[in-house]
Amino acid sequence: MGNTLRMKHADPIDFYFDFLSMYGYFASLRIEGIAARHGRVVRWHSMLLGVSVMKTMGLKPLLETPLKGDYVVRDSLRYVRRHGLTLARRPADPMMDPRPAARAFYWLRHEHPGTETAFAIEVLDRYWRLGRDLGEPAAVADIAPLLGLGVDALREGMESDLARDALRTAVAASLERGVFGSPFFFVDDEPFWGSDRLEQVDDWLGTGGW
Amino acid sequence: MGNTLRMKHADPIDFYFDFLSMYGYFASLRIEGIAARHGRVVRWHSMLLGVSVMKTMGLKPLLETPLKGDYVVRDSLRYVRRHGLTLARRPADPMMDPRPAARAFYWLRHEHPGTETAFAIEVLDRYWRLGRDLGEPAAVADIAPLLGLGVDALREGMESDLARDALRTAVAASLERGVFGSPFFFVDDEPFWGSDRLEQVDDWLGTGGW
Repeated sequence: MGNTLRMKHADPIDFYFDFLSMYGYFASLRIEGIAARHGRVVRWHSMLLGVSVMKTMGLKPLLETPLKGDYVVRDSLRYVRRHGLTLARRPADPMMDPRPAARAFYWLRHEHPGTETAFAIEVLDRYWRLGRDLGEPAAVADIAPLLGLGVDALREGMESDLARDALRTAVAASLERGVFGSPFFFVDDEPFWGSDRLEQVDDWLGTGGW
Repeated sequence: MGNTLRMKHADPIDFYFDFLSMYGYFASLRIEGIAARHGRVVRWHSMLLGVSVMKTMGLKPLLETPLKGDYVVRDSLRYVRRHGLTLARRPADPMMDPRPAARAFYWLRHEHPGTETAFAIEVLDRYWRLGRDLGEPAAVADIAPLLGLGVDALREGMESDLARDALRTAVAASLERGVFGSPFFFVDDEPFWGSDRLEQVDDWLGTGGW
């Protein structure tokens, strides 16, 4: 019983995010700290809201939804001010193609497990805080040296069939699990959607759920 | 300058809610306390998400949205457990017709100003906590004695042209202002959407905004 409990508590927190989601970026800045306080690790999952999720849900993109689109821009920039973040990119700016980065993420997980989280953090930082366009494979491959890898290896990796298949499989698996937004978390199979649920995640980890 | 500031700070908080929204009910239990702590009053606004808002936004009802619908049921019941609420009604239960209550709300505001908030609180309590069906004018009119009014007067009032016109005007005005969800708040013209933004509302009132 004690062992079961310990094993259960050792389960990682699953963190699903889309590189294009500003709320996903906000959550990425906090989830590791919250998990660490409760002795947990975080397993990051790159996904693509734009492709399958919106189609499955029958929704249009958030920023194109009347009334809500305007509010979301205001709400996210209000969060930025409140938390003293400085972002070069605004939520309504033209968006990059997220697939090269997402494919690179899964190639890294497969070929160099453990480096994919640092990679994701770097992509999010360059895209949101520095305002760089990471939609081109070459720009994504530039991150390789930070991970101790060669630029060419990462470039070829993200364009491999393995990477394409892994991303497709991951997006399908996220939908299968009920993930429909970014950020999205599972703590011991309990789903939490939105950066505004991080306080609940923290509470849940501290109390063991309710 | 001092006068301007005092007048600004005396402005009421606008609270928009749909009687059918469980998150609106949650917020209704907290907004008066938050406002009072900051020396503010709350002006309640009954609105109808189902009619104009969903149409304007091009969205289907929340509970019928794939993936999100299931999550929302789970999320709201989790909130209920965490806050020790006991509800007779579940989010997926068949819903009442909200119009008699919403029309009564505006008739009261017009004919007996000041009673509409107590009325709304009573409707929400009977509907969500006690699980009663308040979709019939007779059930709504039963609340009249609590407000010091006659049952027949409220019954006739909610079916009057004045009440119908006032509700239509109020829903149109809420859309015009950008209200697309329940609960929705304005604090000095700053919009906040969702019961999960009440902490931000509290923070905004305490700091004067950011």
